[in-house]
Amino acid sequence: MRNYLAIDAGGTSTRAVLVDPSGQCLGYGTAGGGNPVSRGFESALAALVEASRKALGDTPGGVEGALAGMAGASLELPSQLFREGFRTLGLRGEVMIESDLLAAFYSGTFHDDGLALIAGTGAVGARVVDSRLDMVADGTGWLLGDNGSGFWLGREVAQAVAAALDGRGPATALTPLVLAELDITLDPQARTLGRLRAQQQLIFKVYELKAIELSRFAPLVFAVPEDAVARAIVDRAAQALAQTLVAAWEGSGASGSGASGEQLAAQPLVFGGSVLTKGGTVAAAVVERLRTATGVGSGDIAPVLVGDGVVGAAVLALKRHGIAVDARVFARIQESLAALRGG
Amino acid sequence: MRNYLAIDAGGTSTRAVLVDPSGQCLGYGTAGGGNPVSRGFESALAALVEASRKALGDTPGGVEGALAGMAGASLELPSQLFREGFRTLGLRGEVMIESDLLAAFYSGTFHDDGLALIAGTGAVGARVVDSRLDMVADGTGWLLGDNGSGFWLGREVAQAVAAALDGRGPATALTPLVLAELDITLDPQARTLGRLRAQQQLIFKVYELKAIELSRFAPLVFAVPEDAVARAIVDRAAQALAQTLVAAWEGSGASGSGASGEQLAAQPLVFGGSVLTKGGTVAAAVVERLRTATGVGSGDIAPVLVGDGVVGAAVLALKRHGIAVDARVFARIQESLAALRGG
Repeated sequence: MRNYLAIDAGGTSTRAVLVDPSGQCLGYGTAGGGNPVSRGFESALAALVEASRKALGDTPGGVEGALAGMAGASLELPSQLFREGFRTLGLRGEVMIESDLLAAFYSGTFHDDGLALIAGTGAVGARVVDSRLDMVADGTGWLLGDNGSGFWLGREVAQAVAAALDGRGPATALTPLVLAELDITLDPQARTLGRLRAQQQLIFKVYELKAIELSRFAPLVFAVPEDAVARAIVDRAAQALAQTLVAAWEGSGASGSGASGEQLAAQPLVFGGSVLTKGGTVAAAVVERLRTATGVGSGDIAPVLVGDGVVGAAVLALKRHGIAVDARVFARIQESLAALRGG
Repeated sequence: MRNYLAIDAGGTSTRAVLVDPSGQCLGYGTAGGGNPVSRGFESALAALVEASRKALGDTPGGVEGALAGMAGASLELPSQLFREGFRTLGLRGEVMIESDLLAAFYSGTFHDDGLALIAGTGAVGARVVDSRLDMVADGTGWLLGDNGSGFWLGREVAQAVAAALDGRGPATALTPLVLAELDITLDPQARTLGRLRAQQQLIFKVYELKAIELSRFAPLVFAVPEDAVARAIVDRAAQALAQTLVAAWEGSGASGSGASGEQLAAQPLVFGGSVLTKGGTVAAAVVERLRTATGVGSGDIAPVLVGDGVVGAAVLALKRHGIAVDARVFARIQESLAALRGG
């Protein structure tokens, strides 16, 4: 038997699946964070091996090859570093490292060309050409960009509330939500040295957090859909995310001069990350922006929503070992994996 | 002789002046950072005492009272904490602590009502009523606001360049300036995994900085005045700062229902901080925005620019000890202090 290990190594958790060349998933396992950059190499490797060992279970015959999807700078680590840890699992081949962006893309499609837009804590868009990342836009982190991400939304919410409290911005239904989240009582009269006490407390409590923790305020923007300030934040997020996707499309070396909006709309399009896959407000607004940008009719842009990158890691593991993945194989991966995860 | 010590205690440096009741400045001294919150109490107190000792020099007669202008949370420290350190200087009275915002305001005017707008690393607006801070707007720090500040400008510059590099934003003359500042070579063809290498290096180098250090890019926005992206950033900074000042005016408990734009324009108006006092581009744009917001004619809004808060600390030291400061006393403080600092 030639079975393959496919691993989706995320910042907070790692998922591994054992898949055979027909796309049948034979075992599934999870472990803690598997990103070498944020977790340290030894700790990340241990998580990868732990999830893989669970996925292997008692399946005989060892493993022909392994592939892990990882974020950013992890891709620059030499893959032989991972080899030693996997030897105990009976791995015969290499541990290939691929971008988590590509794993997310292939979680939604088996085609080798298309577009992916991911908005979780961060935000990034990519164009895939011939099964490789041809162009990546944004994903520049919380200080430089990640526009439309969970952090970005949370910061916009906090800033809108800070502005509403001193009158720089309009009143918003987000204010009581943010103050309640931080256990702050709003007394619109109480001031110290000219500053509203509730704002002073907001300042104290926000700067006790790590900056990236502002993402905790992101969900509040969906809790008051009738609020004009909240709606404007969602609209700007959607605008930014659509811009990121269009930039990935237009900046691609493969697009040439004939890359039209209609061609964009005809591509497989995969949406991932909680901002795009939960609730649906932002995803719908992004699609609306893309329709305007490309000039195509309603219904012509239909993104596939993906939860994580484990299906895509399995697709990549087969493809990178020369095994064709068609609609039937892709469906088998999805269905057999869903059965394993449900059990 | 009843002489007073007036201290402008900043985050990176401290200035002290010895002033007599006529406004004559008798001695001047400087020392390192004097903010107890950022520097620690003992270190800040040592800086205050060192600058004060230099200001005292050999002037006989001791000191009747002392007043220090400080930022934010330092104002909540009990002033008797400072008393002990000043005893060796022959201080008879108290060490009064006042807001650095008020010290900045009184560096530009001796009137007890008016408006101050400060944009340095941070940004804050205040309305002064009856010699007290009546309303403060923004000054909420780099994560929550400080809109139009040096940090804000620097972050906008860095974000504009990150967006220009992957096509999410328009090309800008800021790009070569930021890349040169970080020793990055721009090769528009070189990509790794779909990302422009220059952008990848920008990401690496920016996240090696402390977030607040993004303010180093702020001056670049003034280096390319013909660039549309740079102009748009300056315009948004001016818009935000004008909004902050108007919010301080309108949110004041003293304004009542009859507070009109014309009344705002008639107030003493003090601008401080490097963003507003160096170059003049932002200050002029803020004044233009205020004219539009208040509906008053050209020339009716003429802010006084102040460098630091040491004149204002001297004004406050006299006022808080019951000594009237009129135009003549104010001029004497300014002139005699300038002579001491020039020497």
